[in-house]
Amino acid sequence: MTGETDRGPRAAEQLARLNAQLARMRETQAPWADLPAAPMASLADLAALPVLRKSDLIQRQAADAPFGGLTGGPVAGLRRLFVSPGPIFDPEGRGADWWGSAAALTAAGVRPGDVILNTFSYHLTPAAFIFEGGAEALGCPVIPAGPGNTADQLVAIRQYRPRVYVGVPDFLKIILDKADEAGVDRTCLEIGMVTGAALPDSLRAELAGRGVAVRQCYGTADLGIVAYEDGGPGMVLNGGVIVEIVRPGTGDPVPDGEVGEIVVTRLDADYPLLRFATGDMSAIIAGATGARRIKGWMGRADQAAKVKGMFVRPEQIAALGRAVPGCHRLRLEISRAGEQDRMHLLAEHDDNDAADRLAAKLAEITRLKGTVQVVAPGSLPNDGRVIADLR
Amino acid sequence: MTGETDRGPRAAEQLARLNAQLARMRETQAPWADLPAAPMASLADLAALPVLRKSDLIQRQAADAPFGGLTGGPVAGLRRLFVSPGPIFDPEGRGADWWGSAAALTAAGVRPGDVILNTFSYHLTPAAFIFEGGAEALGCPVIPAGPGNTADQLVAIRQYRPRVYVGVPDFLKIILDKADEAGVDRTCLEIGMVTGAALPDSLRAELAGRGVAVRQCYGTADLGIVAYEDGGPGMVLNGGVIVEIVRPGTGDPVPDGEVGEIVVTRLDADYPLLRFATGDMSAIIAGATGARRIKGWMGRADQAAKVKGMFVRPEQIAALGRAVPGCHRLRLEISRAGEQDRMHLLAEHDDNDAADRLAAKLAEITRLKGTVQVVAPGSLPNDGRVIADLR
Repeated sequence: MTGETDRGPRAAEQLARLNAQLARMRETQAPWADLPAAPMASLADLAALPVLRKSDLIQRQAADAPFGGLTGGPVAGLRRLFVSPGPIFDPEGRGADWWGSAAALTAAGVRPGDVILNTFSYHLTPAAFIFEGGAEALGCPVIPAGPGNTADQLVAIRQYRPRVYVGVPDFLKIILDKADEAGVDRTCLEIGMVTGAALPDSLRAELAGRGVAVRQCYGTADLGIVAYEDGGPGMVLNGGVIVEIVRPGTGDPVPDGEVGEIVVTRLDADYPLLRFATGDMSAIIAGATGARRIKGWMGRADQAAKVKGMFVRPEQIAALGRAVPGCHRLRLEISRAGEQDRMHLLAEHDDNDAADRLAAKLAEITRLKGTVQVVAPGSLPNDGRVIADLR
Repeated sequence: MTGETDRGPRAAEQLARLNAQLARMRETQAPWADLPAAPMASLADLAALPVLRKSDLIQRQAADAPFGGLTGGPVAGLRRLFVSPGPIFDPEGRGADWWGSAAALTAAGVRPGDVILNTFSYHLTPAAFIFEGGAEALGCPVIPAGPGNTADQLVAIRQYRPRVYVGVPDFLKIILDKADEAGVDRTCLEIGMVTGAALPDSLRAELAGRGVAVRQCYGTADLGIVAYEDGGPGMVLNGGVIVEIVRPGTGDPVPDGEVGEIVVTRLDADYPLLRFATGDMSAIIAGATGARRIKGWMGRADQAAKVKGMFVRPEQIAALGRAVPGCHRLRLEISRAGEQDRMHLLAEHDDNDAADRLAAKLAEITRLKGTVQVVAPGSLPNDGRVIADLR
């Protein structure tokens, strides 16, 4: 466990907000009636509560429409209601900058009055509104352009001279290319606020070379903006969220620096999500001073794989680690040999003789046979992969 | 000319707001520096000012981006910036319910807290935001659904049970049909707030029979909501606009009851449009007590027609009427005979011998020959048609 001082300068304030939120949730929201009554002594105590997975959320929302009882008040008190693929239903509350994007925009250099070209879709999903809220809070006019239709994007650029692009990274490059082809002066675009897809260093360098300083942020439709680039290492965590990095398939926090799944608790009265597992991977940057930071988006944590027609899930590998004492990192490699699926477990363990016990337990838990190789602690890659599908 | 008392109970307040606005425009906006300095004595005095046509607006916006100097302050003070086909550029200011839709929604029976399914597009054009503003002012949660994608519309209806539909009339019927086909309970939908297309009585009756009371409103991307149904005759005019009905192609008001083009002056500091010609036709309902009313949308006023390869425009027919004293309504019928275009002018005139003078003037103004028939004053249809293309 990390100490409270490692949790950044906001830890004390966040702990107070969290305890107030937990007390309110326990008293007013049926699904949280069983929350422990005692205040938490540390943000680390969150780890004792269950993780809320997307599949749980879908079930709760189906059983108790629209939000599974997880919102802090009636639907009539909300501002917008979304339908994301899955289907997942997400609310937007009425507070100013409800999704928390103003800090990300400010860190990217956006100033009050800057014109923003918002190329996210406004229909059904919240991405566009996440940035609308921040723009409104900062006093920035927005061109609600939506995705696609580059001809109209160029008309908007010519007439309104936006300084800021908001959207996915690739579409920014498409717009710059089309503008240059069509001879449209797009030098007004100086800042790109991008999210929703990977930003390779090569693309960032190209965009910078063309005059657009690109900053990334990370967020989800359920949580709003979780972290954003501010010029320091990786991304700094947003003030309204508490982030844990857990071993994929579990709710168990990994040590700082280790790659795992991002689990977020949102400090918000309208939609106080508790330990929401995002399915995305990252790592806390160990030893950073000041605010807590993550490395950014490091891929998806969905590692379930089908072996000989049966699902093998990260939760099963986590159960295996608990069943055989002395395990460190585990990594199940799935390959194909002789027209057959094949499982091979790489297990960090101090005792070379643990292989037999691990193989027996693996067969018991997965109902599938696999080979086991014990490796030295610290020798497996720090990439959050619990199941590596090599087929 | 109608008297001030005929201009409804809001006339005195509107006149005061108009004079304050004209004074501000004259002092702060270069394009309006030539406005007469004396306050207007009556709303009828507006008729002395030039009409602003869409073509003028496009030219001004092209010459002086983005808004041709017609906004009341800098772009940085605006909330959203739109690109409508044409291209026309429209601003949204920061005021609450800036487009004036809350009154229309309230008159349709929408209450605070009602969930609204908004099926207008949010991208580039303002229709969806016109109703977002009213919903926000009323405290109604909005599903920003956008147009199309009926499968997702049904998911949203099932989960959020919206009471209010906002969009074009036809799409409401499509959604009800699809819901019934798919067995989705859509009885939550009780109110339809429709605009943007004609609503035939048959469609209104069908929708009412299926439980949805439909109310229409009339507005444009430049002006917001101009008028709306409130249960009284036709549509009642919105408080923030002054409406004139003019002979198509002119800025000359027609008597109450006569069909003509809708010209609107918006009382708004952010975008104080003065005598904006909408290109739509309607008529003031004569003799209605209380607030001033129009008959609703009665088609488009764009009546330019090509005859033998040359354009004939309503402005030319208006010039003809001014050139030959004693004219009442004029109607140029264009037909096809012997593989040739043919022009025939029907002219309300007290003097049967005016036909020759009218024919000579018609040829002079249009550079095309046409026949003329003098008819009795009041005998031409009251439909606003100055040019009737019968080909």
